Amino acid sequence: MVVHNIRMVLEYDGSNYHGWQRQKNALAVQQVVEETLEKLYKRKIRVIAAGRTDRGVHAKGQSINFKVQDNPIPVNRLPLAVNSLLPSDIAAVHAEEKPLDFHARYDVKSKVYSYKILNRKYPSPLLRNYSWHVNQPLDIEKIKAAMKYFLGEHDFASFQASGNCVKNTVRTIQDLYLEKHGDILIFRIKGNGFLYNMVRIIIGTLVEIGLEKMPPHSIPRIIQAKDRNLAGPTAPPKGLCLEHVEY
Amino acid sequence: MVVHNIRMVLEYDGSNYHGWQRQKNALAVQQVVEETLEKLYKRKIRVIAAGRTDRGVHAKGQSINFKVQDNPIPVNRLPLAVNSLLPSDIAAVHAEEKPLDFHARYDVKSKVYSYKILNRKYPSPLLRNYSWHVNQPLDIEKIKAAMKYFLGEHDFASFQASGNCVKNTVRTIQDLYLEKHGDILIFRIKGNGFLYNMVRIIIGTLVEIGLEKMPPHSIPRIIQAKDRNLAGPTAPPKGLCLEHVEY
Repeated sequence: MVVHNIRMVLEYDGSNYHGWQRQKNALAVQQVVEETLEKLYKRKIRVIAAGRTDRGVHAKGQSINFKVQDNPIPVNRLPLAVNSLLPSDIAAVHAEEKPLDFHARYDVKSKVYSYKILNRKYPSPLLRNYSWHVNQPLDIEKIKAAMKYFLGEHDFASFQASGNCVKNTVRTIQDLYLEKHGDILIFRIKGNGFLYNMVRIIIGTLVEIGLEKMPPHSIPRIIQAKDRNLAGPTAPPKGLCLEHVEY
Repeated sequence: MVVHNIRMVLEYDGSNYHGWQRQKNALAVQQVVEETLEKLYKRKIRVIAAGRTDRGVHAKGQSINFKVQDNPIPVNRLPLAVNSLLPSDIAAVHAEEKPLDFHARYDVKSKVYSYKILNRKYPSPLLRNYSWHVNQPLDIEKIKAAMKYFLGEHDFASFQASGNCVKNTVRTIQDLYLEKHGDILIFRIKGNGFLYNMVRIIIGTLVEIGLEKMPPHSIPRIIQAKDRNLAGPTAPPKGLCLEHVEY
């Protein structure tokens, strides 16, 4: 009996799912992926994902692993086989075999998320599920001035959804940058790990700064306070996308 | 009694509509827009559009006009008022008052369409409604070499859906260019007018050239032949977007 540990990269449109993680009364991406793999392999499959994306959050590079015995499907043909069974809003875009001790969540070195904001007066039907529509003008220079304070290792307790009790709230943000394409802002943030809702609270806070509701230099004070109430609101999930996972 | 002629620019996600033009047994964008304006103005409204986009085709800049008597809504507040009644996949993004003889279709000087191709092995759930997935490698240099033959005034009879009997099939393409962003190709084409399915047949032909099924220099021969059978297939509607209309 040979056991294979398969890593697979998934892209999905999270609009119609209640997030990654299996739920009792709502459809999650994990359930669809596991049921698809079970159809393919004709046995029970449990999948581990790098990040548990929330309801409405998208992924271009969700990374998962699962183990199968006596795997009859060559790994290079696996994405096509899986995609032929998946609905069109989920797709496998890569598969490879890994050592048996590889774990898609525990072994993560860094994750990259993007966050898209549409900054114009009127909403965009084409981006309605993939961006946060901010209809007041944003001061980009102030946002950029605030962004630099997030870089590096900090205790991000102020940027964690309240009610969460993770013991260690220290994380390192390795990269945070902003591209502007006309009225579309795309943030990219890379870190060794993220607290629950951390990216969305950082974005919500940066938007408060762009709206001049707080100055850029308030960020160090908010970080130091370790108080969720001082940071900005949680940005909506639909602008968020798990881009890439590194091991 | 004062009559106002209002021009409005619409963005829409065409995925869930049977094109722009009103249909008897299927929902078209025109019907939704007219019904919305009728709710707003509490009278019958007929709308004229610059281009009749097909089923599944999108618009960022569809241009329409309609006439209302004794219009009580200031034109600068009109988009917000209309958007509060429209479904989220259609939005007004601009409105202005025009002279009474302005006609959204007859007065068009040029239209700009974009066409998006995803050129990679596996499909993209996030782009599934907004791009054509071409899973074989495309030779971009060959496509670019072919593109230049379309520029200028030509008889585009070979690039018109068969069964159409427009008398004058001469059109001018003012611009045609291609941007590449990773595995995404975005064509932009500007012309004084387009025959039925013309953009989609041009794109389908360029893809045949990119797949090396015909050489770039076959384009002049195809144009000269005035025979739809010599051109490539009609590219699917979902990659097409009416970007902008000029008057």
